[in-house]
Amino acid sequence: MVETIQWTDEGVVMIDQTRLPREQVFVTCRDYKEVAEAIRSMVIRGAPAIGVAAAMGVALGVREGADFETVCQTLAQTRPTAVNLFWAIERMRRVAAAMNGASSGEVAARMIEEARGIREDDIAICRAIGRNGAPLVPDGKTVLTHCNAGALATAGYGTALGVIRAAAESGKQIDVFADETRPFLQGSRLTAWELQQDGIATTIITDNMAGHFLHSGRIGCVVVGADRIAANGDVANKIGTYSVAVLAKENGVPFYVAAPVSTFDLSIPSGEAIPIEQRSAAEVTHVFGVPIAPESIAVANPAFDVTPARYVTAIICERGVARAPYEESLRNMLR
Amino acid sequence: MVETIQWTDEGVVMIDQTRLPREQVFVTCRDYKEVAEAIRSMVIRGAPAIGVAAAMGVALGVREGADFETVCQTLAQTRPTAVNLFWAIERMRRVAAAMNGASSGEVAARMIEEARGIREDDIAICRAIGRNGAPLVPDGKTVLTHCNAGALATAGYGTALGVIRAAAESGKQIDVFADETRPFLQGSRLTAWELQQDGIATTIITDNMAGHFLHSGRIGCVVVGADRIAANGDVANKIGTYSVAVLAKENGVPFYVAAPVSTFDLSIPSGEAIPIEQRSAAEVTHVFGVPIAPESIAVANPAFDVTPARYVTAIICERGVARAPYEESLRNMLR
Repeated sequence: MVETIQWTDEGVVMIDQTRLPREQVFVTCRDYKEVAEAIRSMVIRGAPAIGVAAAMGVALGVREGADFETVCQTLAQTRPTAVNLFWAIERMRRVAAAMNGASSGEVAARMIEEARGIREDDIAICRAIGRNGAPLVPDGKTVLTHCNAGALATAGYGTALGVIRAAAESGKQIDVFADETRPFLQGSRLTAWELQQDGIATTIITDNMAGHFLHSGRIGCVVVGADRIAANGDVANKIGTYSVAVLAKENGVPFYVAAPVSTFDLSIPSGEAIPIEQRSAAEVTHVFGVPIAPESIAVANPAFDVTPARYVTAIICERGVARAPYEESLRNMLR
Repeated sequence: MVETIQWTDEGVVMIDQTRLPREQVFVTCRDYKEVAEAIRSMVIRGAPAIGVAAAMGVALGVREGADFETVCQTLAQTRPTAVNLFWAIERMRRVAAAMNGASSGEVAARMIEEARGIREDDIAICRAIGRNGAPLVPDGKTVLTHCNAGALATAGYGTALGVIRAAAESGKQIDVFADETRPFLQGSRLTAWELQQDGIATTIITDNMAGHFLHSGRIGCVVVGADRIAANGDVANKIGTYSVAVLAKENGVPFYVAAPVSTFDLSIPSGEAIPIEQRSAAEVTHVFGVPIAPESIAVANPAFDVTPARYVTAIICERGVARAPYEESLRNMLR
């Protein structure tokens, strides 16, 4: 399994997710600004992975002697929707605050240790999500997933793909349908690539085919990740998730969300308050630089949507499986 | 407005829809086999347009002295889903059968006349569909459409886009959201291009954004075309139509199908019996020749899906507006 993100003496090394699957290129971010740019340009993406990246960015910033608040704010302003980014920065901030009086060298060493710890934790959390979710996956059917909530979206193993991997490892006979997930094509470029390497049978479909196959009876369940989950169980995730959830419910197919508790944002009562990132028109009008639309046409490009909790069968996290009413079950998970 | 398909002395001239919008290239089919290949490779596509193309292909075949049955069968085997293809071939067959005893020159002249007539009829039919549908389009809102049911899918003016054009011509303040419609990108390549030329404000979205915008309250209605409509009102149309219909219903947005009566196939009781074309994996894994997926990954590529009649608010044809129960209303339209 390829490493998504690692701390090295030279800096933070990431596989460039804008160039997969055709090219496996690793980039090294040598200062915090390079980490911020890597998050913004989606060299690294996926809520847990950008949490790890942000933590490592903070550590780099401290090591290079930059102003702590500037470092945190620069990293916080890269992308607005995934809450793990803010969660990771906050965790780094608390550790720094507790070191009042320590030497700058001591603080830097501790920040690096903490960032590496967040990465290690994330892999363990994904494994636990997998263990908790695997029993929910119907044997002998196809699992549908959207976007990439895999090893590449985390420090390793994945959330939604962690559930799929754990189900396969437990001996269940499953295969996967991966929505290609326009415009960034995380499904065809990343999910298909990851699962192909694991030997899990995977079929790419365009996003607009998901309904057809949910209606066909072939899909046993849907498993997706999350970028932020509100107190009432509303889920912000990659654009298109809402459509898949509605179509799953309409056809009686369970719809599962797999995400670490760091994705829960109980300060937000419902999904309506979750900020939705708008990205550039070029992501829609061009594919790998090739124009596929008339020049100067208008484009909408919301990167996420919100799935109301009523479409979510269960939320699988590292501490267990939460079901409606989510106000209660999510709060209990955080106790 | 560009001409989709025309009869000329040199042969059947079509704009190559595989190369729009970046290149406007016209191809001339000089014999019936070239017409068959143009339909198969989607140089021309859209149910009414391939009906016109098939009729002109039959006329070419008769003019070149090919065996009549071979010509009809070759053209009928190009694509299985749109019934207009078979309807047009049948219409040509009836005219030929009525000319028993005529000279081959007389038959060829009559075939050419009939094929040109089908083209002229189609433009008039689209205008009538537009007139019938325009009153249904809410003023001051956005119309969502999927695929291209426009001038390029017909001999001119369009079915779904005919309704949009007629609504705009009647003075309604509307704009259009066009699903890009993977894998062939008829929405971003063709619909956006057509409407941009007409000065109708158009925004491209990826297919997986449709649900998000249907949920937002911005969309006043959905209008799409059809490739075949069964006796019970089930509608076969471009893959993804079913998803849009479910999402429209879930959000209380009217879902209209605009299609000529030549698209009705009352010999088929329900959509389950409509053959769904499966197209090549390369349409999904490559965009204008650029690979966007891992090599040798599995792909599903059904070109159409079936929308059950319960999601269809009304079917707009050249003779009026049919509503449920469709068994009755569609039969009445054909009287």
